[in-house]
Amino acid sequence: MADRLSGKRILVTQATRYMGPATVELFQEEGGTVVADDSDLVDATACSQLVADAGRIDVLVANLASPNFSGTTVTDLDPADWHKPFSLLVDPLHWLTQAVLPQMIEREEGKIVVYGSATALRGLKTVAAYSAARAAQVGYVQAVGVEVAPHNVQVNLIAQNYVENAEYYPPQLMDKPSFVASLKRQVPAGRLGTAREDAMLALFLASGECNFIVGQALPFAGGWVQR
Amino acid sequence: MADRLSGKRILVTQATRYMGPATVELFQEEGGTVVADDSDLVDATACSQLVADAGRIDVLVANLASPNFSGTTVTDLDPADWHKPFSLLVDPLHWLTQAVLPQMIEREEGKIVVYGSATALRGLKTVAAYSAARAAQVGYVQAVGVEVAPHNVQVNLIAQNYVENAEYYPPQLMDKPSFVASLKRQVPAGRLGTAREDAMLALFLASGECNFIVGQALPFAGGWVQR
Amino acid sequence: MADRLSGKRILVTQATRYMGPATVELFQEEGGTVVADDSDLVDATACSQLVADAGRIDVLVANLASPNFSGTTVTDLDPADWHKPFSLLVDPLHWLTQAVLPQMIEREEGKIVVYGSATALRGLKTVAAYSAARAAQVGYVQAVGVEVAPHNVQVNLIAQNYVENAEYYPPQLMDKPSFVASLKRQVPAGRLGTAREDAMLALFLASGECNFIVGQALPFAGGWVQR
Amino acid sequence: MADRLSGKRILVTQATRYMGPATVELFQEEGGTVVADDSDLVDATACSQLVADAGRIDVLVANLASPNFSGTTVTDLDPADWHKPFSLLVDPLHWLTQAVLPQMIEREEGKIVVYGSATALRGLKTVAAYSAARAAQVGYVQAVGVEVAPHNVQVNLIAQNYVENAEYYPPQLMDKPSFVASLKRQVPAGRLGTAREDAMLALFLASGECNFIVGQALPFAGGWVQR
Repeated sequence: MADRLSGKRILVTQATRYMGPATVELFQEEGGTVVADDSDLVDATACSQLVADAGRIDVLVANLASPNFSGTTVTDLDPADWHKPFSLLVDPLHWLTQAVLPQMIEREEGKIVVYGSATALRGLKTVAAYSAARAAQVGYVQAVGVEVAPHNVQVNLIAQNYVENAEYYPPQLMDKPSFVASLKRQVPAGRLGTAREDAMLALFLASGECNFIVGQALPFAGGWVQR
Repeated sequence: MADRLSGKRILVTQATRYMGPATVELFQEEGGTVVADDSDLVDATACSQLVADAGRIDVLVANLASPNFSGTTVTDLDPADWHKPFSLLVDPLHWLTQAVLPQMIEREEGKIVVYGSATALRGLKTVAAYSAARAAQVGYVQAVGVEVAPHNVQVNLIAQNYVENAEYYPPQLMDKPSFVASLKRQVPAGRLGTAREDAMLALFLASGECNFIVGQALPFAGGWVQR
Repeated sequence: MADRLSGKRILVTQATRYMGPATVELFQEEGGTVVADDSDLVDATACSQLVADAGRIDVLVANLASPNFSGTTVTDLDPADWHKPFSLLVDPLHWLTQAVLPQMIEREEGKIVVYGSATALRGLKTVAAYSAARAAQVGYVQAVGVEVAPHNVQVNLIAQNYVENAEYYPPQLMDKPSFVASLKRQVPAGRLGTAREDAMLALFLASGECNFIVGQALPFAGGWVQR
Repeated sequence: MADRLSGKRILVTQATRYMGPATVELFQEEGGTVVADDSDLVDATACSQLVADAGRIDVLVANLASPNFSGTTVTDLDPADWHKPFSLLVDPLHWLTQAVLPQMIEREEGKIVVYGSATALRGLKTVAAYSAARAAQVGYVQAVGVEVAPHNVQVNLIAQNYVENAEYYPPQLMDKPSFVASLKRQVPAGRLGTAREDAMLALFLASGECNFIVGQALPFAGGWVQR
């Protein structure tokens, strides 16, 4: 491995969930100083406090998870569940971004990498609330990405699907022949991506090797969606 | 004109604002019975009550407006303003959709047309909250669109920009030579679209002439964005 | 029906094939004078002669078909077959466009509608040459669309898939239960579109009702691809 | 730097032009054995001979350049010039791909990285032929990408624009204040990307760190185009 994050301080949110563990591990291997947070990001104050406590942040990895209520039609969606993906995925993304941007803009250097979802780019049934919130993340990244690009701050999003992850793909599901067959049919790569591979894309976006891609949602889904 | 909405009942929300007036006028010319509502869609109850009161709805035109806070950087965005576009654009879209879908699914026929924004597809600076909310509409339409398509219900969105509209383009702005020059530079068509033209696209999507386009965000922006 | 093409002269190429018959029928019903051509568009001279012979052309419908060699992997593709989709789909599109644009630009009014393919937007295996040629059509329409928009000429493309059409979906295929099941799985709308529905979209794009959409590839595929 | 291409043999075409020099330099630094070719890829035979002579190829970098005839309207485009971008950009991409895939498929491992253009994704005036050819590359990559993904071969394309390159941005242009101002206006990043940065993206796609992205056109244009 290289020392692609040597001298860099990285804040990873929800570090024990979703893509958190793989990210923390890889980013440390690459020489980064990782602030691995696991607090609930319940409001703007919690987010700004987290950022304030973290000190200098060269890279923010916005790793945010939410239930997707898959299997529940939009007509059956519980009112309380409608807001949940927005509260868990969109609000904290903004609060964290708003808190961390000033120091990045002042230093004229910084990265924000968002673990998002390819459901923002291609519609799937029974995940309307989740897809809307994931699409909001994309719209946010597109707008903020072009806004802060002149300050040499790069904001991008990984639009992933079919990535190994115990929350969406529990072991008992992955062993089912019907799931394996469905994977071959749905995903050109014919398999799930690994969290490590996903973190590799985050690393590329977070590193100094990638300063000219901004405001982008990059599909990471084995060919399930293109552009 | 043809009678493309003859025998159809159409609910148009916020009928006196944004694309409302042009839509009501055109849809009536086309023989539709238009329920032109102008109430505040403050919560799920207000939306479901509106739908219940309207009786049979063959077409829902979700016409929703919001300030976009253009000119305010994401770091300067007021906390209260962050939620406003979601409250005004995304929540009522879901509540209206959830309220109206059951009758459409039962009849195995229906249309939902959303006046959205091309800022969901292409990032612009200083409109992060608004763009995120508009993108949430797109994600929602993509997901719900594929979900209800098997019931012969078509849900689509017009991703518009540079459409005449006193809220975003007040007369004093449109007279400025610098604005006219900027239009020529930014918009391949070299002009603003009219609300009437916009309503024509909504009419096409709402009519029985268009039953095979589903879950789509259609750019309507004079070439400002493609796909 | 309305007289949406009243007073308009429309050139439809390959009028007896692909989307030709449905287009000619609908466009005549709408009051248009249709020049239904069926010649081979073998070179630039043939195309410019066709346009010259047609006289005034308000709308060009570029209806072009090609074998797609589906089932043949890219490694097995015959050298002669590689060029065929380009010769049949891309070259004549350019020659026709180049021949017809001067009169449209001079009158400051005109429409070009291209029947293209959604395979340009979403990759499918064993149709590489065809997909590349269809994508070339999209790139061409995007570029020419923004170039001629200031002259009030609108160039757009229908990115279709799963549309009834004896060349791709022969009756014996459509009767197979496995095909019907595959349709339900692949196409959110759960069915093939009809050529008539497709022509309705072409009509909308060709009519005076649609002057602000330019350089666009519009998916028409029952939700199979989004954007 | 890391040894991300250690033990890998890479064929770079047109190695002295366009993105060739930066690619060769970086890929060698990363431990790769680079076959830097500079022959004219005039026909299928030349391409298959090149591949045969190169022996084992783990990574093909399809670096292909063409004049874009910028400034010439589509109506003024010379017939000979129409075909040139296809001959230079599309035909050799297919011939090279067809020649190199069998060995990759047999080894169940391989990468093809195409230096393409963002003009395939967003229309620009006076570059119709070039844009069409660049879009054909995208369509080809999308189709072949999903076709060979099950064989663990990853085919992707860099959709670039505004990258330093003496062919499109000669020094005399880059010194013009009007060009610098136009850059700030057109490109959110406010600058040209460097060939080195571009090669970094190619390296990521070519390396073993990136096995789950397939059939993708990745915008690399400082935010000029999104998705």
